[in-house]
Amino acid sequence: MTEAPLFDRICIIGIGLIGSSLAHVVRRDKLANHLAICDRDPEHRGKALALGLADSVHEDPAEAAAGADIIVVATPIGAFAQIGAALKPALKPGMIVTDTGSSKRSVLRDLGPYIPDGVHFVPGHPIAGTEYSGPEAGFAALFQGRWCILTPPPGTNEAAVEKVAALWRSGGSMIEIMEPGHHDQVLAITSHLPHLIAFTICGTASDLEGVLQQEVIKFSASGFRDFTRIAASDPVMWRDIFLNNRDALLDVASRMQEDLARLQRAIRWGEGEEIEKLIRQTREIRRQLIEAKQA
Amino acid sequence: MTEAPLFDRICIIGIGLIGSSLAHVVRRDKLANHLAICDRDPEHRGKALALGLADSVHEDPAEAAAGADIIVVATPIGAFAQIGAALKPALKPGMIVTDTGSSKRSVLRDLGPYIPDGVHFVPGHPIAGTEYSGPEAGFAALFQGRWCILTPPPGTNEAAVEKVAALWRSGGSMIEIMEPGHHDQVLAITSHLPHLIAFTICGTASDLEGVLQQEVIKFSASGFRDFTRIAASDPVMWRDIFLNNRDALLDVASRMQEDLARLQRAIRWGEGEEIEKLIRQTREIRRQLIEAKQA
Repeated sequence: MTEAPLFDRICIIGIGLIGSSLAHVVRRDKLANHLAICDRDPEHRGKALALGLADSVHEDPAEAAAGADIIVVATPIGAFAQIGAALKPALKPGMIVTDTGSSKRSVLRDLGPYIPDGVHFVPGHPIAGTEYSGPEAGFAALFQGRWCILTPPPGTNEAAVEKVAALWRSGGSMIEIMEPGHHDQVLAITSHLPHLIAFTICGTASDLEGVLQQEVIKFSASGFRDFTRIAASDPVMWRDIFLNNRDALLDVASRMQEDLARLQRAIRWGEGEEIEKLIRQTREIRRQLIEAKQA
Repeated sequence: MTEAPLFDRICIIGIGLIGSSLAHVVRRDKLANHLAICDRDPEHRGKALALGLADSVHEDPAEAAAGADIIVVATPIGAFAQIGAALKPALKPGMIVTDTGSSKRSVLRDLGPYIPDGVHFVPGHPIAGTEYSGPEAGFAALFQGRWCILTPPPGTNEAAVEKVAALWRSGGSMIEIMEPGHHDQVLAITSHLPHLIAFTICGTASDLEGVLQQEVIKFSASGFRDFTRIAASDPVMWRDIFLNNRDALLDVASRMQEDLARLQRAIRWGEGEEIEKLIRQTREIRRQLIEAKQA
């Protein structure tokens, strides 16, 4: 007896790192009878076919989404409003719309208005990634052991939430349900601020005069290198995240700047005890990480 | 025929991560007939003996240094002036004094005045480390393939510089000779600023209210975790580095804050093009790192 797949037809919009990794999972676990992939870049569509990820490729979101049980929007979040408008004619009662965007209030704002009654809207965010991008960067194990946060609006059909959860569990993810504003606060500090800072430090280094810059490259192993790795991620994706999680990000960024100013002041005035106290506090967080097996 | 070891008697002051790793190298490669280890902490001295790292252990620097060909000061740099004063009676013409401190102008300032004529002063900085500390954290491979920067004052005896270089080359290091002020500038950006920022972000996170903090731990894999790893290093060592490379560090920190303010402003006002341009610039540094095989 062959079990029926989780979905008849899955549609993935945007075949970057996350979209292609999810497509690998769908293929590996035979989660759909048909996987339709939509990307506006013809090169990406060609690669999706060449990699055997898609049963069909489409430039038009509505064409790709027609007849799908579930639509996964996996483009940079700046494109979501436009994609929502393009999808609208294809959305029929009973369909599920989900996404992989890194800020969740903006997804409700940008996709929400295009979701008609009877269509189940289950925004999602797989907490996974590498510093590489594009359809060839994807691999099925990307989500293994990683969290996927779902932020369904109150009253969302529970069976639909469960189907989205089942999709990510196939990829090896653990599921967490969260309120979108809370998601945006948590991610602002765990992900968006570290990236903002990493981009900034790399930018500061790239403004140094030639000789000094060459030596920064040469001796980068002493801490700087870790920042450049974080800063290697996709520029458009990060531009969109910064713009769309603006309030939560600017809030944690100014908290951090206050803390940095305090530390700078302590350094300027030679306040050794204060500096040591601040450093020791930070080890507490590290200890908790180790306890939570996230280190 | 057995070759004579590089040194008759080596003295290492401070048996933390760097001191104990160097001791492992000395033991492995039989670089001395006698290795004397000095540490003010009796527990560290006991461990140095138990690990077979020392032929003799000492609480008093002058006693440990008596008759040594080379003295390696490997304590946090805040202790250097005190150690210089304590060493003075033991320093005899022909001896070499070196160190492993992460800022080099302060070492000239703090140790320099205690070095008599005829003693060769060759400050050094192995660019290596882990997030662990103490005598049990050391291992011989720590310096393998890593740079070691030497900052001998003009006119330093070349044979003495070469002997210090040979010591670090035994550990697998590549040697770079640099002017101390230049060293401090390069390290301020490649190492001291990244650590300052990592400590700051971890501090900001540890000030969050309980629930949010627990979720920061849970979802730390999305960037934050890399910062906590950097921030796990020894508090006293870093306090001393911040205080002793103050000018260079505060200079790059304020450059970075200007850059951060520019990025924050662009986010606040929704300047997508500006943000994308800034992010793209940072990839250039990453590309150079990959070319220089430091990525």
